[in-house]
Amino acid sequence: MCGATGSAPPPPQHDPPSVAELGEFGLIARINAGRMLPPGTLLGPGDDAAVLLAADRRVVVTTDLLVEAVHFRLDWATPYQVGRKAVAVNVADVVAMGAVPTALVAGLAVPGQTPVSTVDELTSGMWEEAERAGAGIVGGDVVGSAEIVISVTALGDLQGRAPITRSGARAGDVLAVCGRLGWSAAGLAVLRRGWRSPPAVVGAHQVPQPPYPAGPQAAAAGVTAMIDISDGLVADAGHLAEASGVAVNIESAALPVSPELVDVAAALGADARHWVLTGGEDHALLGCFPPAVTLPAGWTRLGLVRPGSGVTIDNRPYEGSPGWQHFES
Amino acid sequence: MCGATGSAPPPPQHDPPSVAELGEFGLIARINAGRMLPPGTLLGPGDDAAVLLAADRRVVVTTDLLVEAVHFRLDWATPYQVGRKAVAVNVADVVAMGAVPTALVAGLAVPGQTPVSTVDELTSGMWEEAERAGAGIVGGDVVGSAEIVISVTALGDLQGRAPITRSGARAGDVLAVCGRLGWSAAGLAVLRRGWRSPPAVVGAHQVPQPPYPAGPQAAAAGVTAMIDISDGLVADAGHLAEASGVAVNIESAALPVSPELVDVAAALGADARHWVLTGGEDHALLGCFPPAVTLPAGWTRLGLVRPGSGVTIDNRPYEGSPGWQHFES
Repeated sequence: MCGATGSAPPPPQHDPPSVAELGEFGLIARINAGRMLPPGTLLGPGDDAAVLLAADRRVVVTTDLLVEAVHFRLDWATPYQVGRKAVAVNVADVVAMGAVPTALVAGLAVPGQTPVSTVDELTSGMWEEAERAGAGIVGGDVVGSAEIVISVTALGDLQGRAPITRSGARAGDVLAVCGRLGWSAAGLAVLRRGWRSPPAVVGAHQVPQPPYPAGPQAAAAGVTAMIDISDGLVADAGHLAEASGVAVNIESAALPVSPELVDVAAALGADARHWVLTGGEDHALLGCFPPAVTLPAGWTRLGLVRPGSGVTIDNRPYEGSPGWQHFES
Repeated sequence: MCGATGSAPPPPQHDPPSVAELGEFGLIARINAGRMLPPGTLLGPGDDAAVLLAADRRVVVTTDLLVEAVHFRLDWATPYQVGRKAVAVNVADVVAMGAVPTALVAGLAVPGQTPVSTVDELTSGMWEEAERAGAGIVGGDVVGSAEIVISVTALGDLQGRAPITRSGARAGDVLAVCGRLGWSAAGLAVLRRGWRSPPAVVGAHQVPQPPYPAGPQAAAAGVTAMIDISDGLVADAGHLAEASGVAVNIESAALPVSPELVDVAAALGADARHWVLTGGEDHALLGCFPPAVTLPAGWTRLGLVRPGSGVTIDNRPYEGSPGWQHFES
């Protein structure tokens, strides 16, 4: 998300020790010490693998990688915040299926000279966000590397419901969103300018706050299709429309453009509406509801699903890049 | 495993295109094209998460990271071989619990200038090893990075049996191994010398061949404790002994020292027995069986479990490093 500029890791220190000084097994013991695992954890960390309850005979699974200088910079976010983000982006994918998060496994690749305190903060953030989601970190791997790479795999429980895919939207459905739009993009723009304020906007980039309970709630309410907005509203609405074989029209008057974003955009000479339409990484949920369904609390109507294909804004094609992609310049 | 020497990625090419030229979504479509998923895959790649059958209401889960220049070098192994290894090391952890592998999710961090052909080969290797294990790759993530990092999470099904942990060994049990010992270490020694032969030994380092069916078979036969040998026989016997609160004695006369390893050791001026005792990454299974149990086919008796603690060879403490650890010089 942050371009190719690398961030230098903190300098080697001897108190606290480095990861290399503590060693792999010392580090793993330290990461797992004193953590409480949810009741569905039948066997936690410390063996070849963990064992989890899968009460309804199915399990939801998703994985994401976060790479230093690509997905985060340690001069723009603390290790604690990076750890929270690594868990949040994965849990958001689980709840977007209508499932309840149950457990995570995590892989951590760190340079040997990394202070153990950095790993402590990173894993504290991962644990705190996992607990916020109601899940435990039941296993992991710690290895050496040249740059920090975090892999998280999240598992979830559908509680007897059908999974909510991207492909179930039908013409006539109401398009709605739950969660923030454009905040992370605004925070990134602020950081790129070299600012640290306003903290609420910068914090939204550092730690996304996906609306975890909204996913299962929407599933229970009858949502027909749902997606986690990681690439941007227009881009992910396009993914949903393509998978469902429908068209989606977003009404610009319905877009939730927060006053905070308008202020930041004015200060930066930017367009808050562009952030709302194309900013990824807030991990809001985008869902389609049959017209007879009352939207659950927290959801905002954005537009309508129609026959056809593609995404329109006020019935016109969106001009401009729909969202951020990896590997592009 | 290979020290700190980096391997240069293949030079950028324009035919086939680079990962950056293809883009994230093009790459993901290419990776998933034409692959068959096992029947337990209720929802495969392409949505926010996959959904899998978990027939016995439990799921086994484990994760590992492989980092270029730490776990593999692309001048010592082809991308295809690296892909196979990334899957094999994870599946070995699943079968060491006595479970049958069902599915994997994978994360791939690659520099943008990496040729798409490298990713094609890598994912072909991952798919081939997954199919060999009876599992499908049901989801993944592809991101940019400065070095190649592969994360794999493997899931498994216990088929109604109790999980086999490291902590169930009892005094009187027979210690036994299934799979290769020392082959990967011998292959690494050959590569470090700048040789490429004998191919069987070098190949054992490039692609481990864990005995996948042996894990569930041992569980069905009544194995009391089991571990995947990733750090070395002495080191992992030590992990098992510590977790079980027992001592383990290995009889040196019982060690399977292959003639191939003796030949390579003679040529290198090395000690084949040291490779067998301390070499990791063959991912053999080490198990403890009650004395009344006939060892399943493929298992070799190595010694006995006794009251006490620690690992001995012919009743004497092992002198020397028990195995390889990350972050150590």
